[in-house]
Amino acid sequence: MATSPMKTIGAGELRSSHLGDAVTLAGWVGRRRDHGGVIFVDLRDSTGIVQVVLNPEDAPAPEDVLHGLRSEYCIQVIGTVRPRPEGTVNDDLPTGAVEVVAETLRVLSPSRALPFQIDDRVEVDESLRLQYRYLDMRRPRMAENLRARSKAIGAMRRVMEREGFLEIETPTLIVSTPEGARDMLVPSRLRQGSFYALPQSPQLFKQLLMIGGVERYYQVAKCYRDEDFRADRQIEFTQLDFEGSFWGQEDVLSVLEEVVVEVVQELRGEKVALPLTRMTYAEALERYGTDKPDLRFGMEIVDLSEVFAATEFKVFSSVLGSSGCVRGINGGKLGLSRSGLDAFVSRAQELGAKGLVWMVVEEAGSLRSPIAKFLSDAELAAIKTALDGDVGDTLLIAADDARVVGKVLGQLRLDMGQPDDNDELAFAFIVDFPVFDVAEDGGLSPAHHPFTDPGDIETLVSSPEKSVSKAYDLVLNGAELGSGSVRIHDPEIQAKVFEVMNIPPEVAEARFGWFLEALRYGTPPHAGFAIGIDRMVSILRNEPNIREIIPFPKTQTGADPLTGAPGRVEEDQLFDLGIDIRPEVRAAWAEDAGQVEAEDPADA
Amino acid sequence: MATSPMKTIGAGELRSSHLGDAVTLAGWVGRRRDHGGVIFVDLRDSTGIVQVVLNPEDAPAPEDVLHGLRSEYCIQVIGTVRPRPEGTVNDDLPTGAVEVVAETLRVLSPSRALPFQIDDRVEVDESLRLQYRYLDMRRPRMAENLRARSKAIGAMRRVMEREGFLEIETPTLIVSTPEGARDMLVPSRLRQGSFYALPQSPQLFKQLLMIGGVERYYQVAKCYRDEDFRADRQIEFTQLDFEGSFWGQEDVLSVLEEVVVEVVQELRGEKVALPLTRMTYAEALERYGTDKPDLRFGMEIVDLSEVFAATEFKVFSSVLGSSGCVRGINGGKLGLSRSGLDAFVSRAQELGAKGLVWMVVEEAGSLRSPIAKFLSDAELAAIKTALDGDVGDTLLIAADDARVVGKVLGQLRLDMGQPDDNDELAFAFIVDFPVFDVAEDGGLSPAHHPFTDPGDIETLVSSPEKSVSKAYDLVLNGAELGSGSVRIHDPEIQAKVFEVMNIPPEVAEARFGWFLEALRYGTPPHAGFAIGIDRMVSILRNEPNIREIIPFPKTQTGADPLTGAPGRVEEDQLFDLGIDIRPEVRAAWAEDAGQVEAEDPADA
Repeated sequence: MATSPMKTIGAGELRSSHLGDAVTLAGWVGRRRDHGGVIFVDLRDSTGIVQVVLNPEDAPAPEDVLHGLRSEYCIQVIGTVRPRPEGTVNDDLPTGAVEVVAETLRVLSPSRALPFQIDDRVEVDESLRLQYRYLDMRRPRMAENLRARSKAIGAMRRVMEREGFLEIETPTLIVSTPEGARDMLVPSRLRQGSFYALPQSPQLFKQLLMIGGVERYYQVAKCYRDEDFRADRQIEFTQLDFEGSFWGQEDVLSVLEEVVVEVVQELRGEKVALPLTRMTYAEALERYGTDKPDLRFGMEIVDLSEVFAATEFKVFSSVLGSSGCVRGINGGKLGLSRSGLDAFVSRAQELGAKGLVWMVVEEAGSLRSPIAKFLSDAELAAIKTALDGDVGDTLLIAADDARVVGKVLGQLRLDMGQPDDNDELAFAFIVDFPVFDVAEDGGLSPAHHPFTDPGDIETLVSSPEKSVSKAYDLVLNGAELGSGSVRIHDPEIQAKVFEVMNIPPEVAEARFGWFLEALRYGTPPHAGFAIGIDRMVSILRNEPNIREIIPFPKTQTGADPLTGAPGRVEEDQLFDLGIDIRPEVRAAWAEDAGQVEAEDPADA
Repeated sequence: MATSPMKTIGAGELRSSHLGDAVTLAGWVGRRRDHGGVIFVDLRDSTGIVQVVLNPEDAPAPEDVLHGLRSEYCIQVIGTVRPRPEGTVNDDLPTGAVEVVAETLRVLSPSRALPFQIDDRVEVDESLRLQYRYLDMRRPRMAENLRARSKAIGAMRRVMEREGFLEIETPTLIVSTPEGARDMLVPSRLRQGSFYALPQSPQLFKQLLMIGGVERYYQVAKCYRDEDFRADRQIEFTQLDFEGSFWGQEDVLSVLEEVVVEVVQELRGEKVALPLTRMTYAEALERYGTDKPDLRFGMEIVDLSEVFAATEFKVFSSVLGSSGCVRGINGGKLGLSRSGLDAFVSRAQELGAKGLVWMVVEEAGSLRSPIAKFLSDAELAAIKTALDGDVGDTLLIAADDARVVGKVLGQLRLDMGQPDDNDELAFAFIVDFPVFDVAEDGGLSPAHHPFTDPGDIETLVSSPEKSVSKAYDLVLNGAELGSGSVRIHDPEIQAKVFEVMNIPPEVAEARFGWFLEALRYGTPPHAGFAIGIDRMVSILRNEPNIREIIPFPKTQTGADPLTGAPGRVEEDQLFDLGIDIRPEVRAAWAEDAGQVEAEDPADA
């Protein structure tokens, strides 16, 4: 690490090659052993840990200072590197062959008694960790997470610079466009009654940059989304955002592959094989029941509708008769009892299925199932063949419309097969997303923002529900890392899309008029993408939650237990901004007065 | 540049080495010459310009398309590189030896008639430029400004990475701390009646990172300041923010020198000589009348109080008698008429002086001045010596308290001597800033944020007005590029500083309690800095205003003429946030209704 007069080398950098060197160390007191005589201290800094020997006979500091050392005191040690005595070498520590015998010890800052131990092996309540995040960061795991996040972003930037992208900042105080998630608002003081919005993404500005002739743009962009919190969301989050002109989907995916290779190499030291798996949205839904399939394991969904085309089993025949489907998965050798098998049925019902059929392949090759008696031998044989059933395998079959079957079997597949950790990595591109999501009642809602190229315009107009857009996602281990699309660059097509999306021209003009105007000045074809950095790093670091990757995250209700944000502000601040708090909100304060809020950061 | 099937090479990249190559170009139509026969088009993209030849006999496109080409149409050209005919080589253009003869021309997007020409030589009203920023960006100067900003940030990052700094994002939805400039507020939906603030700087969070053991942090940080706009300020701006532990002032300045060298090398191709000039605050005030001296020229302020110690000239003697001072500068050979010289007097009065004395050194060596007759020969001779007066030089003398004299002579010095451009670069560190600014009435106000190391604590308590803090600035050509300090790491000293700054303990606790608590857990000594990126790049690019460096800047009233931000929002959005617009603000809307706002982006 970079040195300074206060510290000539990192504690964790000391090796046998430094034997005899005079060094100045600075860091924090980790474990210490004080037997009244010689004191041994594990000195920890950002580079690692080394053992420091404080011998009162050398008088490195007054006795009361030596014996007053406590955990997490910040200290400086001037001393000499020497080999550890035989038999005390610690092979678990990179510095384990040496120790530093102190000539001078200075306490730079004492520490109060700690709210929790600085040790990864100790489980600490997350709200306490967030309240003392600055101590939590001293734990090796969190320290490594911060380094990993920095390294991942560095790797992304390397790819962007290699490929000639310009880093350009788009504004964060923008106009509010009532699309999708809620905007966070910032009242303007100079224009009272008007508000800025914080950006949900740099979408329109990066498109303006393309219109402006930039051709290759990127940004590590802070974005804001005022959603009701889910476990894996934060109101502010960071994405690698990029866009290119004279570009199509293949150009974007090829840059994405470079990013994936570089980041995985940086954080895991592994080489990702290219090309990445690619799958259409329709295929992902059919084989995995989801548009973010976890491809680390098989257990694919198999269509059994053919098998039951002429079945006499009413439950299946009536579903098939009303354009539903029958599909199944082979869960493998689960060895479950009857009650264990029945638990799948309850789980399926929770997920929205009317029911679920389980079957177990028995020694003799026959299928044990509550419904076996309703099926013909030919049907039973065909099920086994279709699902590749081996002795001991558990087969699960659902019948309903394709949406429900996909959701249920897709989730059961994850319940049964998804690995606990992310040691293995399975990236995939999902392409050919539909333009519209079809709701249960058949209603159409746009699957992406309205600037996405809808592909064939005639299909869009004649059969919008079948329309396939030039939108694509990057998926890792069952999580969506990001999404992108080819954008519309023709103002006529843009107008048509608004029309099909039921956005009347006057509304489109009011919301996006300035952007529609921009499209009319020689807009190049362009395409882009955004990767959620926190999500990607958390998976690569094997962390269950993005809060572990964010230096100062918020809880599920958007609070920061460390600083108390969000907080009350003074009345004259509000007055200057031309706003006031609604009377009923003030009344609610009064009721709450004196109440202490207890909060679990992971509360949904 | 990176290529794609839609574009195999950049227009500006073509050279004689490409002769005979089949190329696919894509970009915008610049100048075109259409004489009814062969059409010549300057095709422009992000790499530069090349001449394209469209010969109707080759039928690259239907005749109506060929002759319908207009400025800024976005086109694709497939063709062959050939030498320009003898006599038509353009040496001003890097591609001037070649041209591309088109086999195929496609119009990718037409363009409406432009609101202004895409040409640096045409002066365009700034509000029109901002309204059509995406067109403004196609002008070579703006395009180069965006590239320069990206390159400057890249250079800064290289230094940071080389020196082992981690890039860490601090939160942007934080708690409001009523210090210094106004916070911009963000109402919380999940905690109605509470607000986040947007950060004025990452100050306390970067200090928390130091407490957290990070040791080397940096960030290209977006910051917010709700000030009344000045010409060179924006409500959102970007700084290179860094901090180090076990660090003192010298460590910070040494990293800053590396940053300066790297950025200037990148943008100017010049090597900055090290070490950078260093000067104390007191010296800067005395010699240049300002804490951000422009060191590209001399014209230093010289103290003449000794010269007039026994003067009979009442104006001077009374000032000296009431602990004021008499100082002068030598403005050089200005060759001004009497009225030109008297104009200095008016200017000095504007600046707050009661008066100003001018003197011109005449051929014979005597001093011509309205007050010459009141001064002794010895005094006149001493003035000439002290100010190094040569024949023809104009000398300006002011007498008042040191603050006024410094302000007046410092400004006159700039008026007379400051170069019009930034071709020359004069960096300097200003160190040893006072802890307090002394107001005209003798009142003390903190010169820096209260976390700045106040140096000697006894001086702070006994003579706060003399107290010198460990704060330092980086100055370039008379502009402050940034500032930093060694921070307080001892909670006792922090408490003492609050006390001297008249912040009662309970107020300090209410505002900063969470931070004071953090200081108590083994805080390392630490120091840091923040450089205003827009300011630095604008000077290096010789731009008069940071708006020229910012892709999408706001006007002086915080408006964006392109998008209309800030704007009105829907009532239910406000309702969800628990706020309302004050009735008198709504009433003012009604009055304004129908009025059209005209605005100059540079209005103060």
